[in-house]
Amino acid sequence: MSTSYNRIAGHSIERLAALSDGIFAVAMTLLVLDLHAPARELIHSEQDLWRTLAAMSPQLVAYLMSFLTLGIFWNGQQAQLSRFTQGNRHLTWIHIAFLFAVSIMPFSTRLLAEFIRYRAALLCYWGNVLLLGAVLYLSWRYALRSDLVTEDTTPDIRCAIEHRITVGQALYAAGAALCLIDTYVSIAFIVLVQINFAIAPQIRWLSRV
Amino acid sequence: MSTSYNRIAGHSIERLAALSDGIFAVAMTLLVLDLHAPARELIHSEQDLWRTLAAMSPQLVAYLMSFLTLGIFWNGQQAQLSRFTQGNRHLTWIHIAFLFAVSIMPFSTRLLAEFIRYRAALLCYWGNVLLLGAVLYLSWRYALRSDLVTEDTTPDIRCAIEHRITVGQALYAAGAALCLIDTYVSIAFIVLVQINFAIAPQIRWLSRV
Amino acid sequence: MSTSYNRIAGHSIERLAALSDGIFAVAMTLLVLDLHAPARELIHSEQDLWRTLAAMSPQLVAYLMSFLTLGIFWNGQQAQLSRFTQGNRHLTWIHIAFLFAVSIMPFSTRLLAEFIRYRAALLCYWGNVLLLGAVLYLSWRYALRSDLVTEDTTPDIRCAIEHRITVGQALYAAGAALCLIDTYVSIAFIVLVQINFAIAPQIRWLSRV
Amino acid sequence: MSTSYNRIAGHSIERLAALSDGIFAVAMTLLVLDLHAPARELIHSEQDLWRTLAAMSPQLVAYLMSFLTLGIFWNGQQAQLSRFTQGNRHLTWIHIAFLFAVSIMPFSTRLLAEFIRYRAALLCYWGNVLLLGAVLYLSWRYALRSDLVTEDTTPDIRCAIEHRITVGQALYAAGAALCLIDTYVSIAFIVLVQINFAIAPQIRWLSRV
Repeated sequence: MSTSYNRIAGHSIERLAALSDGIFAVAMTLLVLDLHAPARELIHSEQDLWRTLAAMSPQLVAYLMSFLTLGIFWNGQQAQLSRFTQGNRHLTWIHIAFLFAVSIMPFSTRLLAEFIRYRAALLCYWGNVLLLGAVLYLSWRYALRSDLVTEDTTPDIRCAIEHRITVGQALYAAGAALCLIDTYVSIAFIVLVQINFAIAPQIRWLSRV
Repeated sequence: MSTSYNRIAGHSIERLAALSDGIFAVAMTLLVLDLHAPARELIHSEQDLWRTLAAMSPQLVAYLMSFLTLGIFWNGQQAQLSRFTQGNRHLTWIHIAFLFAVSIMPFSTRLLAEFIRYRAALLCYWGNVLLLGAVLYLSWRYALRSDLVTEDTTPDIRCAIEHRITVGQALYAAGAALCLIDTYVSIAFIVLVQINFAIAPQIRWLSRV
Repeated sequence: MSTSYNRIAGHSIERLAALSDGIFAVAMTLLVLDLHAPARELIHSEQDLWRTLAAMSPQLVAYLMSFLTLGIFWNGQQAQLSRFTQGNRHLTWIHIAFLFAVSIMPFSTRLLAEFIRYRAALLCYWGNVLLLGAVLYLSWRYALRSDLVTEDTTPDIRCAIEHRITVGQALYAAGAALCLIDTYVSIAFIVLVQINFAIAPQIRWLSRV
Repeated sequence: MSTSYNRIAGHSIERLAALSDGIFAVAMTLLVLDLHAPARELIHSEQDLWRTLAAMSPQLVAYLMSFLTLGIFWNGQQAQLSRFTQGNRHLTWIHIAFLFAVSIMPFSTRLLAEFIRYRAALLCYWGNVLLLGAVLYLSWRYALRSDLVTEDTTPDIRCAIEHRITVGQALYAAGAALCLIDTYVSIAFIVLVQINFAIAPQIRWLSRV
C-alpha cells in the first residue's frame, strides 16, 4: 500500500496561521485603495476640499465596517487555530476556503460603497459575511469531530465558540433583512453590532455569548 | 582559501517560508483587484445591478480557479519545506524562481478572465501552471540529491510527493489540450480537477496519488 | 455560569505581531503605488524625463515622510508588544484600531501629496498621526492597568515609553500648527523631527526622551 | 538618570525579519501590477493576442530583472540578519532605510519598463540599486563595530559578506555605465550578471566572491 499524499500534507498550523495573517493584512489594507483622493480639477479652495472629504463619509463608513468585519473574523479564526493540536489536509482546505471569502471582501466592500442605496449590493456583502461565518463554523465542527482540538478545550469553551458564530450570524442576518426598510438602516445596525462586538459586549444578554 | 559566500547564504528555511507565505498572500489577494465594481453610470435599477453582477461570473470563475491553483501549490511547497532539514543557496534560488511563477499568476489570471475565449490566453495560463509544477519538481529532486531532506522521509513519502506533481501536471496538460475543442471545456475540466484535489481525491484511482 | 468568549479570544501576542507586521508592510509598500511614472506622451527627450522626475519631488517627500512615520510607529508598537506577557480581547481590539489608523495612512499621504498647498490635507494627515499616537498611548495605559506587562518593566521604562509618545505628539501638533504660516513649513518641520527621531535624538533635551 | 527610549526599542531581530519579509513580498508581487492585460478593443484574433503578448517582452524583462534584484538583496539581508545576535535602535533604522529602498523598487521598475530607451530611467534604476547596496554595507559595518554579530562570524565570513556587496555594486555600476553605448546593452549586462549571481557563480574568479 502506498502512502497517501493526503497524509503528509497540511500539518503545519504555523504556516497556515502565517498565510492567514498575510491574507488578512493585505485584504484589510487593500480596502483603502478604493478611497480615492478627490480629482484635483474639482478643488479650487479649502472649502471645496473639506466639502469633498465630507462627501466621502459613506465610503469611509463602508471601509470601517469591513475593517471591523475582518477584525472580528481574524479574531474568530485565531481563537480556533490556537486550539488546534495539528492540522490535516481537510482542515487546511477549509481554511483556504475561508481565506477565499476573506480575499473577496475588498470587492464586496467596493460594491457596497459604490452602490450603497442598492439592496443587491448589500445582499452580496451579506452573502460574503455569511460565507465567512459558515466556513468558520464548519472548520470548528470538523476539528471537533476529527479530534484535532487541544485537550483543555472544555465543553464550555466549545459552546462559547459555536455560540459566538451563530449569534453573530443571526445579527448579521437581521441587519441584512433590515434592507427591506432601507439599506442605510441595515448598515447602521451592522456597524453598531460590530462596534459592540469589538469593544466587547456590555449588554447583559450578549455578554454571555 | 577564502570562504565562499555561497556557503553562508540561504540556510534559513524559516525565512524562506515567511517570504513564501507573504508572496502567496499578496498574489492570492491581488487577484481580486481585477474584479472591478460595475460603472455607476450603467446601473439604474436593482435589476441592472443583479444582471451586471451575474455577467461577471466568468471572471469570478477565473478568479476562483487561480485561488485554487495557488492554494494547491502553497500546499505542495509547504509539504516540501516541512521536510527540509536546512536550505542552501541553490535551494533558495529554486524557490525564488518558484515564487516568481507565483507572482505572475495574477497577470495570467487577468489575461484569462479578459480573453476567456482565446486559446492564447489559456495556453499562457497553462504555461504559468507548468512552470510552477516544473520548478517545484526540480526543488524536490535537488533536495533529495543534496541530502537536505529529513531522515523520516521514507521512499513512500518521496514517491507520493513526486507522483502528486506529475499526476497533477498531466491533468493540467490534458485540460489545456481540451482547448482544441473549446476554452470553456478546458476551464471546466481544470476547475473540476482542482476541486477534486482540494476536497481530496474520492475517486479510487486518484486516492492513491 | 457559561464561559465568556471574551476570555478565550485574543491571547496570542505572536499572531497580533504577525498581523501588524503584515499590515505595516503592505501600507508602507502601497504608498509607492501613488508614485506614477510620467505619461509617455509628455516625454520626448532625456531632458523632459529629468525635468518631470524633478517635478515629482514634493510627492517623493510626502512619501518619505509617511514611510518615516510608519517606521516610527512600527518601532513604537514593537516596543510595547515585546513587553506584553500576553494579550486579551480588549488589548487586541485596541491594536486592531491602531492598525486601522495604519491602513488609512496611504490615503492620507495621497491626499497630502495631491493637495500639498491645502491646510485641509495637512490637517487630515495630522489627524491620522494623532489617532496613531492616541491609540498607542491607550494601549500602553490599558496594558499597565490590566497587568499585562512583563515584570522587568521598571517605572523608568514605563515613563520612557509614555514620554516618547507625548513628546512625539507635541512635536507633530506643533508641526501641524505651523500650517497657519505655510503648509511647506509644516512639512519641513515634521520631516526634520522625524529624521531626528530616526537617526536618534542627538539634541541634549530630546536625548532624555 | 532616566532610561533612554533608545535603549529599549528595536531589539527584536525576529520582528525586523518579519517586517522585511512582508515588504519584500509585497514589493516583489506589486511589480506584476504593471503588466497590464492588453486592451480588449485591440484584439480581434488569436494572432493579435500572441503579437501583443510578444510585444510585452521588454516589460517582462524589466520585471524579471527587478525580481532577481530583490531576490539577491533579500538573500543579502537575510545573510546579515541571521548573524546578528540582537538589534538596537540604530540597526533597526538602518534596515528601515533599506526597506525604503526596497519599497521604491516597483516605481523604478515601472519607470524603466516605460522608458526603456532613456538613460534617465536607467540611471534612476541604478541609483535605487546603489542605495540598496550602500545601506546594506552600512548595516554590516555598523553591526561589526557595535559588536552585534555572532561569535562564529570568522574574518573569512566577514570578508565574504563585504566582498559580495562591493563586487556586486561594481558590476551594477559597470552595467549602468554601459548605457553610454545603449540602454539595452546595460540591461542585458545587468540581467546576465544577476542570473550568474542567482544560479551561483560558475566563472572561476567570481566563485571566490
